[in-house]
Parts: sequence; C-alpha cells; structure tokens
Amino acid sequence: MAPSPIESRRDLAGVSRDLAISVVAGLVLLLFALRTHAAEPLPSWNDTGPKQAVLAFVDKVTREGGSDFVPVDQRIAVFDMDGTLIPEKPLPAAVMPIVEDVKTAATKNPALKQKPAIAALLEGDAAGVAAAGEAGLVDIISAATDGRTTEEVGASTRKVLETVKDPRYGKPYTELAYQPMVELVNHLHENGFQVWICSGSPVLFTRQFPRSTFGIPPQQILGSSVHTQFVERDGRTVLVYTNKIDHINDKEGKPVTIHLAIGQRPLFVGGNVGNGGDIAMMRYSKDRAGPSFQLLINHDDAAREFAYAEKDGYSLDAAKKYGFNVVSIAKDWATIFRDPSSPSP
Amino acid sequence: MAPSPIESRRDLAGVSRDLAISVVAGLVLLLFALRTHAAEPLPSWNDTGPKQAVLAFVDKVTREGGSDFVPVDQRIAVFDMDGTLIPEKPLPAAVMPIVEDVKTAATKNPALKQKPAIAALLEGDAAGVAAAGEAGLVDIISAATDGRTTEEVGASTRKVLETVKDPRYGKPYTELAYQPMVELVNHLHENGFQVWICSGSPVLFTRQFPRSTFGIPPQQILGSSVHTQFVERDGRTVLVYTNKIDHINDKEGKPVTIHLAIGQRPLFVGGNVGNGGDIAMMRYSKDRAGPSFQLLINHDDAAREFAYAEKDGYSLDAAKKYGFNVVSIAKDWATIFRDPSSPSP
Repeated sequence: MAPSPIESRRDLAGVSRDLAISVVAGLVLLLFALRTHAAEPLPSWNDTGPKQAVLAFVDKVTREGGSDFVPVDQRIAVFDMDGTLIPEKPLPAAVMPIVEDVKTAATKNPALKQKPAIAALLEGDAAGVAAAGEAGLVDIISAATDGRTTEEVGASTRKVLETVKDPRYGKPYTELAYQPMVELVNHLHENGFQVWICSGSPVLFTRQFPRSTFGIPPQQILGSSVHTQFVERDGRTVLVYTNKIDHINDKEGKPVTIHLAIGQRPLFVGGNVGNGGDIAMMRYSKDRAGPSFQLLINHDDAAREFAYAEKDGYSLDAAKKYGFNVVSIAKDWATIFRDPSSPSP
Repeated sequence: MAPSPIESRRDLAGVSRDLAISVVAGLVLLLFALRTHAAEPLPSWNDTGPKQAVLAFVDKVTREGGSDFVPVDQRIAVFDMDGTLIPEKPLPAAVMPIVEDVKTAATKNPALKQKPAIAALLEGDAAGVAAAGEAGLVDIISAATDGRTTEEVGASTRKVLETVKDPRYGKPYTELAYQPMVELVNHLHENGFQVWICSGSPVLFTRQFPRSTFGIPPQQILGSSVHTQFVERDGRTVLVYTNKIDHINDKEGKPVTIHLAIGQRPLFVGGNVGNGGDIAMMRYSKDRAGPSFQLLINHDDAAREFAYAEKDGYSLDAAKKYGFNVVSIAKDWATIFRDPSSPSP
C-alpha cells in the first residue's frame, strides 16, 4: 500500500527533518540574538557624539577589505582604571587595602606612626600623603606589604575589596565599575580586541579585583610595581615584597609600561581628566601608524558621580590639541552603575 | 494522484533533507578530524615516559569533575626559550641581531671597540663577554640600541632574524624551533592553556620573532629588559632605549618576572639543562597548591643537536630532588626540526 502523504513524510524523512528543524530553529534564534545584540551594543550610553564615534571606529577597523582594517593581533585597547573604569573619589579603590594593611602594621609596630606619610594616610589626609613624595610612598608600601609574601598580600587585599564599602555609594568596590565602560570593554572583546588596564595604582592590589568586575584577566592589568624577591620559607619557594618601588606608573611612565608588557602602540586608549596622568599614553596611541582612538572621560556630574578637573585644564587642552574624543559623564552616560537587580549583560 | 515514495521524499522534505545531509556530513568530517587529531597529539615525540607523562597530566587537569581539574584561568604554561624552544648553541638567536647592531655602532664610533665586552663580542669570544660581567652587558646593550627608538630596533632585529642563517643548520633562526616543542605548545593551546615564554634574552630582540615561530604572541614573551624613555622626536612621541638594564631575567629573576607579568604560579614550566637558569621557575611552579608539571630538557644528542650540561650537574640533580620530568633529546624526540617540505601542523 502506498503511504499517505503525511505518513510518507514521517516515515521517509522523519529523523533528518527533525534534525533540520532543530538546526534551522537554532540558526533563527542565533540570528535573532545577534541582531538584537548588534542593534544595541552600548545601552548605557546616550546616543550622542562619543557613542557614535566609538561605534563608527570599531566598525571601520574591523571591516575586512576596508582601508582602515586592522588585523586582530593589533587590536590592543588600554584603559586607565581609577576615574576611567571606576570612581577615584574620595580615594582610589586600591587605597582601601593599603590603609587596612598599614593599620595592621602600625598596630604591630607603633613607631611607624612617626613617619609623616603613614601618619597622614591614617588620618585620611591625602594632601599630607602627596606632600611626603616618593619617599613617603616607599614608607607606605613598605608598611603595607611588611615583608609578606605576594600570596599573603593578595589574600588580605581580596578580603578588603569584597567587604569594605565605598563611603558614597555604600557598595563594595567590586560592584562599582562604570556600566558604560563595562559595555565598551565587552563591545571591544566582541570585536576581537585584547583589552588591558594601565593604572597608577599598584598591581599588587588592583590584580585582586575579581575578573567579573571589569571583564579583564589579571595578567592584563598593569600598574605601579613593588620589587619582589624569590626566597625559600619553611621549605617552600615564595616571593616576598621588598622596600623598593620598581616603577611608578603615571604620565610618561604609562607608555613605558605598555611597551614593556605589550610591545606595540595601542589602537584604542581610554583615560580621564583629573591629574593629566593619561595624556602620554593617549599621545602614544595617537602617533600609531594608521587609525587609532582616544577617549577622555570628563568628570562633570556632581549629582550622580563627581565633578573635578585639573586647575590648568591640561587634559582637556590636550584633547583639543590632539583630537581626542571627550566623554561628558553628565551628557553622554544614561546610566553610571549597573542596577544590581537587572540581569548581567 | 499519490506521489511515489521517491518523489514524496524530494517534494516534501527535499530542502530540509539536503540541509540535514550537509549538517550531518559536516559533523562526520569534524568528528573524524577531531579523532584523527586526538589520536596523535605529539607526533614528533617517541612514545616514551615524557610524552606519556605530558599527555596524562594535560588529560587529568582538563577533565571536568576530576579531582585534579584546573580551571582555564589557571592553565598557565611558561617555557624558557634558548635551549628549550630553539637551539642556544653556538650562540642564542637573540645574540645575532645584537652583534649586527654593535657592528653598525662600532663602525660609526670606533672608540666603542676599546670596551672589553664589545671587543670580545665582535671577536665571537663568549668567555670574554661573560668575563666583562654586568657592566659589560650594559656596554653591549648601549651600543646595540645606540639611542634608537623601540620601533627602529624592532625593524633592524626582524631583518636579521629573517635573513641571517644559523651556522650549523644553514637556516634562518625563525625556522629552527624544535618541532616537538611546537607540538607541545599547540597541544597546551588546544587544552585551554595560555602559553608564555620567560627567557634570559632581552625582549627587545626576542619579541621580533614572527608569531609563527613558536605560536606564541609577542606580549606573552618575557625576558631581560632595557629601560626606555618617552620623548618627542620631530613632533612624534617615541620610546628610546636608555643605557639602563631594568632586569636580568635569569635564575631567581624568572619567578619575579612571571609574578609581575602573570600574577600566579604556572601550572606547567619547561626549561633546559645548561646553566641552571630555569630551576627557580620550575620550583616556583612545583610549589603551587595543587597539580603542576615541570619538563627539563637534557641536551644529550651531539649527532642531531648538541650535547652539553652543567659541570656540577645542578639542573639534573634538582630534577631528581624535586621530581621534575627529564626529556632526553636523544631518546625522547623522534624529530628535532620540522621538515620544511612537510605541511604545517
């Protein structure tokens, strides 16, 4: 007996048809997901100049065959951390574990409080810390690390970062990354960029942020560094911090660090107005042969975040002179922090 | 009229069936490729102890749910370069561009030849270079870099590496990576490892190897480093080498560099017998909490490569004491260099 049309469909092509339907359904879902995603890559940004400029830049450097196409191995993005990815007022996040560690050391050894930089730090006197200069920094870092191993300092830092709350927002620092910048890092990752942080804060503290904070692995976090020494303790090899600062990663020190760690000029650099610390690495990127993009964040939103700038207008002047893109937090960011009740991006 | 069974197949399910056939054919090809590949991950290794130990280790740390499973972000492998990934006799590859650069500098400025280390280098007198100590190294590096920018030194180094031929094998250095080690790096990559080089040779030279030489990107090549300074030249920002060596990356200096660059103890370390330079980083890996693997290459094959060892047996003694895996080039490697007439792996 000849099968009826309906039966013949089931009998003759049932298995492969079911598979095909699954595959097609999967492709439709995937296309829908890609379309939805591509339609709104930076949802926390207002649809103003900086967002449009970022999207146009990423589009042109990733379009194969285009005159501005940049191969994947040259898609290096570098961001400052404090004030660029996370608030730096009233104090940068990395200062919190330093203060806790110095408190512990000063309890053990009260003579440390005689050192001007340490006294100023414990009183929360930022100007006093700055006045003590590099010698003061050495005193502070020596007290904070206190002959401990890299692993001991890492563990105490993680605890502070996860528990101590920022005084203004009442949240742990690990939850205070700027949502527009997290979206920008994601957008760059999705377009084949390798994303790095190049911060003035010491790596011994900044690398303890959980990877989820910025979406950047610890080995791509660069910063100021303290010398370590390889020794054996109780039969086990360890690295202990010494009293020597190897590198202060600010201003002209940033391109030096980027070159040593990455070995090429970044295609994309993000920094912020505040102390002029990011202009050197932005110029280093701008002088790359071929296209490049520099993003300078202007803290002009006292209501939602902070408003501050250099007295001499150095960073904004440099942005005008060299053609960097300036982000106004007030005008260009619709949201500053992720609403923890909303789903992760 | 009811369609015949054959027609009904074409009419009713033709398009989706064709798609399904393509998908199934693709999957079969993929599975076949994976199976073929998985059957022979280290074809240039003999089926002796070291190959079996490497495969068993990679298998156990990547088996989800297993007691030795290691998450992807902790799968860090670090290899020495000279003598581990490429021959270091008669001289390490990075010395070739240094010699060329010093020759050029000495032609411009003949007074340089009065410096003992430079005279020894130009005469190919390795013992004379060693006798000049760190001050001699500074003289050599200063002459080799000669106030040039990082980009100028990079360009001249690439040219030397691609054109100057190794005296024994008559090939450019970029074609002399050990094939068994290239396969090992590939096998680690395929199993989610991030692979780094940690070499005594200066990064200003080693990073100019094309990525295809070892399959490792330049930002994952660590080594000795010379200080750079950020300056403006003809209106463009550049980094120029100064006369200061920042770090000599040998022995106890290697774990220091690994920690600064990567921030964690490596899961896998490969080094070689010769000057004892890799034992510190192998011990640093061994003292990791959880599983780890150390591979020490013994140069015992004068016929196909070179035979040399430390007079005091330091590295082999350490391998016995700490339980490192020793590779005999003579017994454990079936092939040393890739036959350039065979297809790439």
